[in-house]
Amino acid sequence: MNDDAPVCQHFQKAAELLGRRWNPQILRALLTGSRRFTELRTAVPGLSDHLLSERLKEFEAAGIVTRTVTPTTPVRIDYDLTERGRDLERVIGELATWAERWGRLPVPAAGS
Amino acid sequence: MNDDAPVCQHFQKAAELLGRRWNPQILRALLTGSRRFTELRTAVPGLSDHLLSERLKEFEAAGIVTRTVTPTTPVRIDYDLTERGRDLERVIGELATWAERWGRLPVPAAGS
Repeated sequence: MNDDAPVCQHFQKAAELLGRRWNPQILRALLTGSRRFTELRTAVPGLSDHLLSERLKEFEAAGIVTRTVTPTTPVRIDYDLTERGRDLERVIGELATWAERWGRLPVPAAGS
Repeated sequence: MNDDAPVCQHFQKAAELLGRRWNPQILRALLTGSRRFTELRTAVPGLSDHLLSERLKEFEAAGIVTRTVTPTTPVRIDYDLTERGRDLERVIGELATWAERWGRLPVPAAGS
């Protein structure tokens, strides 16, 4: 990796993180206060337990989310955004604004 | 598709568009003034002609980019962002800010 390279590796990684299917929705759910596994699953309809679990592990590995296990009966597991994760709020907000502004407008036919 | 669905399809599509490999870099190059195919290729090192051409076609189909052919010798082809495409600047700007702020910091070890 070269710091002077025009292609910023960090930028690419961040874009890939947000672009992976379900990730923006899971992050939005976490930003709006869902913390427990079942809450997250409810907030993102269509997402399977297996995939949600996989995505949360990816977020942990990326330093976006922490996982806290409380040894109650039944065991309680909470997911929280780290500072790094909460800081994605503005990116997600701008993305949502763009999607709301343009998503409902038809794409003009291409000239080709 | 259901307008009331908590999962916004437009949002997902926009996130996927930005998350696809090379797309943010190509869009950044277009935002900073590169317009011709060779300029774009130079602005995004490592990207092949084939992939750049494919991505530009995707952008055209998504209404993000227009392609203008000027019948000079040799033929001149310019790519320009549409209003919809230029409006992605803020999303990309926030993403770049986030990546610059956090990209160089080590990811803390996960508790698991």
